[in-house]
Parts: sequence; structure tokens; C-alpha cells
Amino acid sequence: MTTVLGMGMEVPWRELAGGAGVVLVLWLIKSYLEFASVPRIEVELTEKERKKGHLGGGEKYEGDGISERDGCIVCYDPATRDVIARKKICTKEEVEEKVRRCAKAQESWEKTSFKKRKMLLKILQKYILEHQEEICNVSAKDSGKPMLDAAFGEILTTCEKIRWLLAEGEQALKPEPRSAGSMMFYKSARVEYHPLGVIGAIVPWNYPFHNILNPVTAAVFAGCGIVVKVSEYASWSSEYYERIIHAALDAVGASRDLVQVVHGFGTTGQALVKAKDVSKLIFVGSTGIGRKVLEAAAENLTPVVLELGGKDPVIVCDDANLNQLVPITLRATFQSCGQNCTGAERILVQEGIYDKFLDKVVPTVENMRQGAPLDSLVDCGAMCMPKQASNVQALVDDAVLRGAKVLVGGKLKTSKSGGQYYPPTILVGVTKEMRIWNEEVFGPVMCVEKFSTDEEAVRLVNSNPFGLGSSIFSGSKARAKKIAIQLKTGASSINDFATTYLCQSLPFGGVKESGFDKFGGIEGLRGMCYTKAVCEDKFPLMNTTVPPELQYPVKAHSFKMVCGIVHFFYGLGIFSNLTGLVRLLKALIAPGKPPVSDKKQA
Amino acid sequence: MTTVLGMGMEVPWRELAGGAGVVLVLWLIKSYLEFASVPRIEVELTEKERKKGHLGGGEKYEGDGISERDGCIVCYDPATRDVIARKKICTKEEVEEKVRRCAKAQESWEKTSFKKRKMLLKILQKYILEHQEEICNVSAKDSGKPMLDAAFGEILTTCEKIRWLLAEGEQALKPEPRSAGSMMFYKSARVEYHPLGVIGAIVPWNYPFHNILNPVTAAVFAGCGIVVKVSEYASWSSEYYERIIHAALDAVGASRDLVQVVHGFGTTGQALVKAKDVSKLIFVGSTGIGRKVLEAAAENLTPVVLELGGKDPVIVCDDANLNQLVPITLRATFQSCGQNCTGAERILVQEGIYDKFLDKVVPTVENMRQGAPLDSLVDCGAMCMPKQASNVQALVDDAVLRGAKVLVGGKLKTSKSGGQYYPPTILVGVTKEMRIWNEEVFGPVMCVEKFSTDEEAVRLVNSNPFGLGSSIFSGSKARAKKIAIQLKTGASSINDFATTYLCQSLPFGGVKESGFDKFGGIEGLRGMCYTKAVCEDKFPLMNTTVPPELQYPVKAHSFKMVCGIVHFFYGLGIFSNLTGLVRLLKALIAPGKPPVSDKKQA
Repeated sequence: MTTVLGMGMEVPWRELAGGAGVVLVLWLIKSYLEFASVPRIEVELTEKERKKGHLGGGEKYEGDGISERDGCIVCYDPATRDVIARKKICTKEEVEEKVRRCAKAQESWEKTSFKKRKMLLKILQKYILEHQEEICNVSAKDSGKPMLDAAFGEILTTCEKIRWLLAEGEQALKPEPRSAGSMMFYKSARVEYHPLGVIGAIVPWNYPFHNILNPVTAAVFAGCGIVVKVSEYASWSSEYYERIIHAALDAVGASRDLVQVVHGFGTTGQALVKAKDVSKLIFVGSTGIGRKVLEAAAENLTPVVLELGGKDPVIVCDDANLNQLVPITLRATFQSCGQNCTGAERILVQEGIYDKFLDKVVPTVENMRQGAPLDSLVDCGAMCMPKQASNVQALVDDAVLRGAKVLVGGKLKTSKSGGQYYPPTILVGVTKEMRIWNEEVFGPVMCVEKFSTDEEAVRLVNSNPFGLGSSIFSGSKARAKKIAIQLKTGASSINDFATTYLCQSLPFGGVKESGFDKFGGIEGLRGMCYTKAVCEDKFPLMNTTVPPELQYPVKAHSFKMVCGIVHFFYGLGIFSNLTGLVRLLKALIAPGKPPVSDKKQA
Repeated sequence: MTTVLGMGMEVPWRELAGGAGVVLVLWLIKSYLEFASVPRIEVELTEKERKKGHLGGGEKYEGDGISERDGCIVCYDPATRDVIARKKICTKEEVEEKVRRCAKAQESWEKTSFKKRKMLLKILQKYILEHQEEICNVSAKDSGKPMLDAAFGEILTTCEKIRWLLAEGEQALKPEPRSAGSMMFYKSARVEYHPLGVIGAIVPWNYPFHNILNPVTAAVFAGCGIVVKVSEYASWSSEYYERIIHAALDAVGASRDLVQVVHGFGTTGQALVKAKDVSKLIFVGSTGIGRKVLEAAAENLTPVVLELGGKDPVIVCDDANLNQLVPITLRATFQSCGQNCTGAERILVQEGIYDKFLDKVVPTVENMRQGAPLDSLVDCGAMCMPKQASNVQALVDDAVLRGAKVLVGGKLKTSKSGGQYYPPTILVGVTKEMRIWNEEVFGPVMCVEKFSTDEEAVRLVNSNPFGLGSSIFSGSKARAKKIAIQLKTGASSINDFATTYLCQSLPFGGVKESGFDKFGGIEGLRGMCYTKAVCEDKFPLMNTTVPPELQYPVKAHSFKMVCGIVHFFYGLGIFSNLTGLVRLLKALIAPGKPPVSDKKQA
């Protein structure tokens, strides 16, 4: 079949279609071969890990916080308080030994190609995609969160992280050329990124899977080894996740020592901070512990990345689209029962739509189902830390005492399952005098505050000691951006919430009491490296030295010569440059006296 | 006058020349007007500052270190020990008050345009170029260094810094676009840089002018205010330098509170580290004090840049050009009597040219003239700190005791002028067991060590606790680069020394005991800012929300739907993507059971 075009050319449709078909088939084959070339790892699950739903039966955990028994952490399911396991605590000596072994493994790992490191990440990605339910089930059992919350917080975030590393990681670690300055036009300059060595990471319990995979994937991609101290509240699940990583390391022929998980309390964490071979420490957790980590790190001058708490505001302007923002704001507040570093802790709503906003959120929150997330379909699960539920209650009570009003929830319930639950709550009328204004809640409490002008909203946000994320909703993008630019926070999402975290090209980290330095993104990946400034001659046969006039022994006119050279190269425009040239020539032709005391020269 | 070309075209030479002349004249006028538009500031000098040469006469300073007398620092000339002045110590309250005033001034400064900030820097540049001798004379009197050393270390470095900021600073602080991820193709992402607020800087005495101007120029350019605590050994000169900065601030109508210098000892420094309004602290100094600064900074979670000591190696391969490298190596060792953060502290020479190297350096060093630098023409001046000369002696003595050999110098001399002088020294046969191997000398001592293979040289360098700069000389660039890439240091200059510092586009800072984080370059300038990740909708009318299937209340198939979406977007190639699509469709069409316990669903 051919078509005759106006100009007398015939288009061979049949042949074109045939050709396109061949290309498509070849591309499909190539794509399949690429997919098939990524080994599929086998990770055996224990019976407890495999079982769908909560474990039930047996010993119940009693008390207010996880405690040590016979050198072990007692691990339990926060939704039911069923004791799941006992996990041995790592001693200081064991931590040091693990770090040493990691350093040894890292020495050969840093010599591997990006191709190999990418393969490692692809193996992990393949496993994660094909085992989402298993990973979420184990996370839900250890942290009390519903499966959907795990899918968002554990899987989606981790997969985007790996995708970004595969797509842009290598480029981010390539040497970056720099200008070589005015006087050194014959030099070339660049910045190189080389792996730091062993990274230490201390991570929290709120996302047991992502919190491990997040630093691990970046560290190994950058050529580092890593030892992760997981929270005492998420020790059980970390066994499975460590096995996944070890299986992937096996598959690329790398040592399992390259990535290791350690368990324990403060002393184990401190041992990691102070371990001699740790080149950098990433701490994600509370502001109080962050301070202790910093103090401990001073001993070895270990650089620290601090990702601490936040009180992320959502600013809702009166021209915003409520239908769009309400579902986002609800998820931002109640995802994982509010136990998020970057969760909506303050909803600032402009007076014009304040009532409409409440009309929309109150019925939804009133109807939220809460319970053991693996026993029935619920919107909210349990609080991970036993003390956390009573902390939240104390913050709410303090606020109510000082005039705030509870619209929904607000009273801790004891559950039949034995778990620790704080109900989804809406609180209005929060003021600066209340503890809940300044302290992170880390629970399912939506604090709604009213504001009148944009300036007031900015002031309200910036008067807070934290500065992690922020979110602004407005029908006018220009208005939203104008507000965003004034907020002293490490991130701003416009007409959305925390989407900055789903752009894994972006750095993550806050200011003020939210900590400093970044992980994630180009900054976080480069942060696993030491940055080296390099300078060399630009042209092949060039070999510059100190001009004879400036070599030892110093000449009487050396100083004036340098003054002339500097004036010539750094003059502000041609007249200033020429002045320098004249000074230089003067120094060379009529050197005169050296710039020393008049008396002695006389 | 015209020329007829082959094709019959006439070239109007006369008219062309006339046109070019007009363009040139216009350009010259423009250039002149630009130069003239930069105000020339007047800075009055005191009699002591104006006087050429050392001051002489009067009170002599006695003792081992600068001490406090009646709440004042006693300032003296290290070359003569003449007491120059008494400088009032800032109390904790005064420091806090100065920081508060700085924060107030910064609030309006951060709103200024880059045009205004550039004008401020141009005013400084103009003054510096036209007053090089005055600036160096005051520096020499306060620090004991010769005028040529001041020209290199005070003027050249500062002028290049200002030039770089003018040329590339604005670009470095512009928002940087980032990719928005796979699932969020409808979003746009960027990183923005906003001024941090008040920077605190604690700087050493070795370059009294540059050490102030270096952080000050970057801070004000980035929109920050800055309070600089100068060393108790360089307090007198800082008065003049502060007046220069204040005159420049006056000229652009900015508050003098924006840049302030404070004087004192450790308690003054600690007050600055702990001042509430200090958003970041830059510390340049010794490793010991660096540790204390870190500990103090933990209280307010103030991020710290630590620029500590170094033991920068110079590796001389046997194929290197001695005529080129010897003058560079001598300057690298003896500039400012070796009192440089990044000075040559270890010269590793390959055995093949070891003797030739010594044959070249020994006679030059033997003939170096040393004395009060403003009284006669000298190659080396005085040591700034009284204790420093005896420290150097102790390091040399320890080395000699353990088998090292002194080829030149090696014995502290008492000078007629009363100053503190350590003679230019060459030491050979240094081994790992000697203190001088591991500790920074910060004095005029060239330690020459022999090596046989490149691997050995790399091992020798990396076995040291410091990691600031490094330098490699070889006739083969490839060989030099191969060595450089293996050295764990913050900088490497190839066939030159510390040229990385003269590329002010490059970051400056070390690893290991040399500290962490950077100042200088793009990194240092951005370090004066907080980095903000921003994400917004890419297309004008787009307004995305949570899909209804994933809104509260959670549906039975929500989890499986997310699994499908994630598998679709993050699959490794088309087959994996399609698997995701099938999972997604399945979840939508035949949702089945939610992922909860089998028992309860039954």
C-alpha cells in the first residue's frame, strides 16, 4: 500500500509499518533483556513476618516504654501490645567491631563502577516492587500504621529515591568545572566528589523500612559503607529489611559488612557516634537527642546531619480551592497518625473561609475509623510509642486549659486490643501561650488557627522555633509564592503538601530547631562524599613557577611589583587596570626603596 | 582609502577605522564612568597606623602569651615586642547586644538588591587597591610578617575573593531548577537560597586583614549580617580594617551594625557561639579549640563550619621539574614564617631526586634573612605568638631525639629587637613515631621525607590525621592526577601549591582533623544561606488533589491501587511498568479483600 503525495513522491506505508514493527519488537526484546538481567533475589520470611494480620496470643507488653530485659529489647506490636520478639542489644565493643568491618568492606566497594552500584539498586527496586505487601505488613506490625500509610511512606518514597539515584545520581557525583580566577587564566579548576568512607545513621521508628533504605541507598551509591542504628521501637522489622539488603549485596558479590544494622538504646547510638571510623553521622530524630548527638560528635570532630522535629504549617488563603486542599490537608495531618517528621502540625486558615474549612474537615474526621490496622479496614492505626499517646493528651489538655476548643476527639481511649490509640482530633483557637504552639505533637491532632492578612500568616509561621517544611494554598500562584519566599523553612510546597519530599532530586532538611545540613537530593548524595577542590595547568606544556623577581631572596622591589600586578588584574575597569600596569612598570624600571622604615633606609 | 576585493566589493577602511575609533572612545568613557561611579571612601589612619616601619620605644611586652590587664588585651608588635595598644575586651553581654543590633540591621539589608551589594564590594575593592601599602604595613606590625607576604596573603587573596563574588556570586545564589520525579511529572521543583541572618565568625591572627574580609564579603553579599571575633593576637589591626568596612557601609547607606568586630579571649568567643541570634558559626583555628566550639554550639543547635589545622603534603615525583617546583615549595613552606592554614608541612620527595632537591633548597634556606620586617629587607619575619616559637622548637627537638637530622636552622634565637623568631629550618629523616609527623608545626620548618613508590607516598599522606590541602609535582600530568585522586584531602593542586585557594570559585575546607564544611566558593557563599526546596504545579490551570479512591475514608482496594501505581511508575522497563498497570486495573475492577488479617475477613 502506497500513497502518492502531491509532489509525486510515493509513501511506502506498508514498508514503514513493517520497519516500525521491527523496531518495536527489538525495543521490547531489549527492554525485556534489561529487566531480566536484574537478578531476582530470594529473601526467606519467618513465620511471624509472613503471617498476614496481627500475631495475637502470648505475652502482652506492659509498661510505659520499651525496656531492656537481659540485654535485649522487648519488641511488640503497638496495635495489640503483643510481644513479638526479643532483640539483642549491641554493646559498644560490638558497634566498634561492626564499624571496623564496614570500613574494611568499604575499601573495595569504593573502587566499584557506577554500573555495579546501579545494579545493586535495581535489584532492590525489583524486590520492593514485587513484595510491597510483605514489606508493608511487617512495617504495620512493628509500627502500628495502616497498610495504605505504609504504601505511601515506605514504598512510594523509597522507590522514588532509588529511581532518582539511578537516573541522576551518577551525574551529581561527576566532577564539576569551576572558573580559575582572573590572575590564573592559565589554570583549570574543578570540584570532585569522593566517598567519605563509613556513614553512621541513627534513624527513628516512624517508617521502619524507608528510614533504613533512605540513607543506605544513597551511601552505597556514593561508594560508602553504612552502619544504621535503628530505633528500639522498630528493631523487629529491621531484621527482614536487613536481609533484603544483604541478599542484594550477595547478588552483586559485595560484602554484607558494607551495610549493617545495629540495635539498642542510647548507649548503642552513642557508640556509633563516637566510633573512630565513622566519617559522618546522620541523625534523624528529636531535637533533644539531636543536641546530645552533637555533643558526642565533637570528640572526634565527626560532621553531623541533623534532621529534627518540625511544626509544619499549612497556610490556607481565602482564595484557595477547598475541594482540592481539604483531602490533602487531611492526609498531611493523619497519615501514620501524625507521626511524620514533615507532617501538618498547624493549619492556618484565613478568616474568610475558616468556617467553610471546618465544615468540610469536621465530618470526615468524626467518621474516621481507628483500630488495629491489620485486623480490619481502618483510617488510623496505633501510636508507636506508648508514652506518645499520653504526651499528645498532655499537649491537648494544656491547650484546652488555656482556651483552645476540641471539635473532634481529644480524649485518649483504651482499646480492647491492648494497643495505644489517640483518636483523630481537631483543635481550634490555639495561641502562642500554649505548649502545643511550640512543641511538636507527632500525633493525630489537627490544630486550626485563624489569620487575617498574609503578613500575619508569615509572622505566625516564623515566630515558631522550628523550620522544616511549609505549605501554602492560594488561587493565585503569585500570592502563594510571595508568601512561600518569606517562610524560614527548609521546604515549601505550593498548593500541595510535602511534595518536595517526593522530588528526590531536592534536598531535605530544616533550619532553626529543625536541624541543619541535608540528606536527600543532590546535596544529600554529595554529602556522602568529601568535596575536593582541584586546580591544574590548563595547557599541555605549561609549567608555571614563581617569577624570579618574587623568589627568595626577596628583592627591594618585590612588594611594589605585587601591588602593581594585583592592581592590574583586579582593577575596576580599564583605567584602574592601566594604573596597575603603570605601578608594575615603575616597580620594575625604578624600584626605589623597599617598603620598610624610612629611618633605616636613610 | 578603499580596497577593491576580488568580488568587486569595496572595503571602506577609513570609515571602518573611524567607526572603531568612536566605539573605542565610547567604551573608554563608559568604563571611566563606571569606575568613577564607585565612591572613593576616606578612612582616617591614626599616627601609629600611618607610621612606616616599627613603632619602637616605650613599653616592651613581657611574658609568654597575651594576657588580660584591667579588662583589656595588651596588643604588641611580635617583631619588637613593643606594646602598641590596649584593646577593651567585649563582655558576654556586649557580644549579645552587638549580635542583636546586627540582626536588626540584617533585616533591612536582606531586602537590598545585588546591585547595591556589588557596589559595597566595589567600594572595598577600590580602597584596597589604592591602599595596599597601608593595609600591609598595619598587618605587618600586628603579625610580624614581611610586606611581600602580606601582599600575597592579605591583598591578592582578598581582591580575588571580591572579584569572584562580583563576577559569579549572583549566579551562585539564583534558584536552581531540579527534576520533579517520575510520578510528579506535572510538578516543577527548584532549590532557592535565602540569607541565614547573622553569621558569627571566629578568625585567627595569621592574616589579620584577609581573615576579616573573607567571611565579611561573602556574608554581606549573601544578604547576611556578620559579627567577627578576631584573635587576641590581631586586635590592634582590626580597628583599622573595621573602619574601612564601616566607611564602605556608610557609602551605600547601610547600617554599621551589619558588620561588627569583637575583641577578647575564649569567653568572648564562647559568647558569640552561644548568642541566640547567630544562625551559623564559622570557626577558623586550631583543632583543640574547634572541639570546644562544637560543644558550645550544640546548645543552640548552631551549625558550625570548622576550618582547622593541616599538615599539607607536597609530593615530588622523580620526573618533576625541580627548577619549577623548588621556588614554589620554598614559598609554600616559608610564606609568613609557615603560619598558614594551608602551608607545606611535609615535603615527600621520591628517592631518585631526593639529593638533588636538597642540593637546591639548602643553600637558599641557609641564606634567608630574618628580622623585624619593617626595619630592613628580610625574607622571614617574626612568629606571631610568643609560645609558638618554643612549640616549634619542642617539635624539632623531639624529632631530632628520635633520629631526624637538622640541615639548616633548628635553634631558636633571641633577637636584639626583642621579637620572637624561629629560624628557617630544614629537617630530614622524619618518621611516624615523631610528634612532628602528626602535629601541625605552623612554623618555618621544611620537613623533607623520602619515598620510593607512588603507593607509598599516598599511604604516607593518608596515614596522617589531617586532610586539608595537598600538592603533587610530576612531569606526567596523568601520574600526578592518579596520585591526587587518592589523597584524602579537601584540595589538591597539581604541579603547584595551594592554587585552589586562589580560585575563589572553589570551596575551601578539609576532612578528618582538618574540620568540615566549606567556606569560599559557591559552597561557602551558599553556606551563608538556608537552602529551600520548592515544589509547585508546572502548568497554569493544574490543581491536583488526592484521588478520590485514596481519600478518607480509606477504601478496601486503596492499598492495592497504590501498589499498582507504584509498580507502574517505578517498574524497571516496559514489562515491569505493564505489570504495575495490570495490578492497578485489577485493584480498580476487582478490588477483592483489603490487606488485613485472613481470619477477620473470613
